[in-house]
Amino acid sequence: MILEGQPTRSIRRTADGAGVCILDQRQLPWEVRWVELRSADAAAVAIREMWTRGAPMIGATAAYGLAMALAEDGGDAALAAAHAMLVETRPTAINLRWALDTVRDAVAALPPAARAEAAFARADAICDEDAALCRAIGEHGLALFRDLHARHPDRPLNILTHCNAGWLATVDYGTATAPIYLAHDAGIPVHVWVDETRPRNQGALLTAFELRNHGVPHTVIADNAGGLLMMQGRVDAVIVGTDRVTANGDVCNKIGTYLKALAARDNDVPFYVALPYTTFDPATATGADIPIEERSAEEVARLTGPDETGRIATIRVTDSPALNPAFDVTPARLVTGYITERGVLARV
Amino acid sequence: MILEGQPTRSIRRTADGAGVCILDQRQLPWEVRWVELRSADAAAVAIREMWTRGAPMIGATAAYGLAMALAEDGGDAALAAAHAMLVETRPTAINLRWALDTVRDAVAALPPAARAEAAFARADAICDEDAALCRAIGEHGLALFRDLHARHPDRPLNILTHCNAGWLATVDYGTATAPIYLAHDAGIPVHVWVDETRPRNQGALLTAFELRNHGVPHTVIADNAGGLLMMQGRVDAVIVGTDRVTANGDVCNKIGTYLKALAARDNDVPFYVALPYTTFDPATATGADIPIEERSAEEVARLTGPDETGRIATIRVTDSPALNPAFDVTPARLVTGYITERGVLARV
Repeated sequence: MILEGQPTRSIRRTADGAGVCILDQRQLPWEVRWVELRSADAAAVAIREMWTRGAPMIGATAAYGLAMALAEDGGDAALAAAHAMLVETRPTAINLRWALDTVRDAVAALPPAARAEAAFARADAICDEDAALCRAIGEHGLALFRDLHARHPDRPLNILTHCNAGWLATVDYGTATAPIYLAHDAGIPVHVWVDETRPRNQGALLTAFELRNHGVPHTVIADNAGGLLMMQGRVDAVIVGTDRVTANGDVCNKIGTYLKALAARDNDVPFYVALPYTTFDPATATGADIPIEERSAEEVARLTGPDETGRIATIRVTDSPALNPAFDVTPARLVTGYITERGVLARV
Repeated sequence: MILEGQPTRSIRRTADGAGVCILDQRQLPWEVRWVELRSADAAAVAIREMWTRGAPMIGATAAYGLAMALAEDGGDAALAAAHAMLVETRPTAINLRWALDTVRDAVAALPPAARAEAAFARADAICDEDAALCRAIGEHGLALFRDLHARHPDRPLNILTHCNAGWLATVDYGTATAPIYLAHDAGIPVHVWVDETRPRNQGALLTAFELRNHGVPHTVIADNAGGLLMMQGRVDAVIVGTDRVTANGDVCNKIGTYLKALAARDNDVPFYVALPYTTFDPATATGADIPIEERSAEEVARLTGPDETGRIATIRVTDSPALNPAFDVTPARLVTGYITERGVLARV
C-alpha cells in the first residue's frame, strides 16, 4: 500500500517491539494519525471504538492484544481472560475469533514465561500471511478484471465497491481493493464507483482516501445511485469484502451490500465477494443464523467532518429516532464468485 | 396537514392575493420559515434552487409564477416567455409542464388584461384539486393498509418510504404519505421506516419532520438498511411517490427507489407508487426515455445541518470527485400497484 507516497502496512510493531502502531481511522481522511497500542485493553478499545476496522485488521489487532496481555501475565487465567475480553469487542467478525484462537493455540502448550514472545511471533506471522493472502486475492481478481476489460477495451473498466475492504481493513492490499490496485498497477484503466456507505461513510472517507493515495481514478456516489448506474451499463463488476460467509455461501457484509447484489443480478453485472479463506464460516449454516450487530442510532443521526473553517464538526442529520443495523446478508444465489487466495469459487 | 399544531397548506396566497407563501424547505426541519414569492422570477428561483420541491408543489408554484408574470404583462409574448422560463426550471418533472400548460390554456383566449386574474383562479383551482386528489389517494391507500394490518393485527403496520412525497411536496396530505396520515388518523397503529435519502436527505429532514408534526411513530434509517429490514420481515409495504410514470408503467423517482423495489420483490413485500393521474406520462414510452437530471456533485460531497452549538454548518463528506444523478427508474415489473385518486391500478 502507498500512504502519502510511502509504502507501508496498516499495522506494525512499535520500535521497541512491545506494542503496535495502527492508523486511527476515526480521523481519516482529514488527519493521518498513527496511534500506539501497548496493552490488551488498548487493543480492545481500538477495536470496539473502531479506531481500526475490517475483519483482517480486527483479527491482527486482537492477536497482538493477546500477545500484549501475555507479556503482562503469561498464566492460564490471564490468557483465558484476555481471549474472552477481546473476542467480545465485535460480535459479528469471525476473523476476530479465528485470530485469537490461533494465537492461543500456538502458546497454550508453552510455559507461561515463553508465551508472550511466541504470541507476538504468531501475530507477526498472521500479518505476513494476511498480506500474502490479499496479494493472492488480488492476482486471482486481476485475471477476472483482465477478461472483463477485454470485452470493452476502448473504455475504462468500471468497478463498484461498497464500504471499505481496502488496505485500511487489512494489513496490506485489502481484499476487495486488491484486484483494483493490481489492475491499476498492471496498466488496466480502472475507474472505481465508491459507495459513500452510510451511516459511517467508510466508502467516502476511507476507500476514496486509499484510491487517492494510490492514484486510482474514482468517483464517490450516494449509496442510492448504484442501481441506476448498473441499469445504464456504467458498471462492469461489483466487488465487496465480507465479514463472514456461511456454509451455504450467504455473505454477511456492510449494510447495503444486499441492495447492490440485487441490482447487479437484475442488470447482469457480475457480483464478486473477495475474502480470505478464514472468513468462511462452515459452522454457521445460513445468513439467517448470523447475529446482526446493531450499532448506536447516533451514527445515523449525526455526521462528522470538517466545516467551512476546517474545524471537525458534528452536525445533526435528524432529530427523529433512528435504527442502525450494521450488516446485512446477501443470499448466495446473488453471488457470481468468491475471490479467495486459492482461486475463484464460482457458483454453478 | 398539521404544522406546529396548526392545520395549514404548503402553499397559499399572500394576504393581498398578489403573491404566494411557501415554506423554504432548505431550512427545514431546523427552522420553519415562510417566504413570499411575488414574481415569476422568484417562483423560478424557488423551484430551481429547491426552496420547494415535489412534483405537485413544483406545479402549483409554477402555476402561480405564470399568474404573477401575467399580472406584470398579460401579452402573448410575456405569456410565452414566462411559460418557457418556468418549464426549464426542473427538466424531469412532468407535473411542471402540465400545470403551466393548464394555466396557459385557461387564459390564452382571454384579453391580456383579464389573464392574470383568470390565471390566479386557475392556480387556486389546481391547489384545491391537488389537495382533493391527495385525500383521494389517501383513502384508496388506506383500504390497502387496512387489509395489510388485518393480516397481523397484533403488531404495528410497518411502512417504508423513500424521499419525501409528503405534504411538503404537495399542497396537502402528500401522495405516498396520504395513506399513512389517514391510517394514523383512523386508529391503525402505523410505524414508518424513513429512508434518509442521500444525498439531499429529504427523508431524514422532511418526511421525519412531517411525521413528527403529525404524531406518527417513525424511525429514520440509512438508505442501505431497507433490504435487511425487509428480509427480516419488518416491512409490511413500501410506498413512494414519483415524478413521472411512463406509458409502460416504469416509475421515475428519487435515486435509490429502484433498489428498494428490488428488495421488496425479493422479499414478497408489496411495493406501491402513489401518484395523481397527471403524473402518468403516456407520451414517454419507457423509463429508458426519461432524461435523468444530474445535480451538483457538491450535494454528495457536502452536508449541512446544525453543529454542536446549533449553528448551521456545512461539513465535507469527501474530497474526491462525486457524481449525483437525482432520479432512477423502477421497472414496471417491480410495482405491485399504482395508488391514484381514481383507485388502485394493480399489475396483472
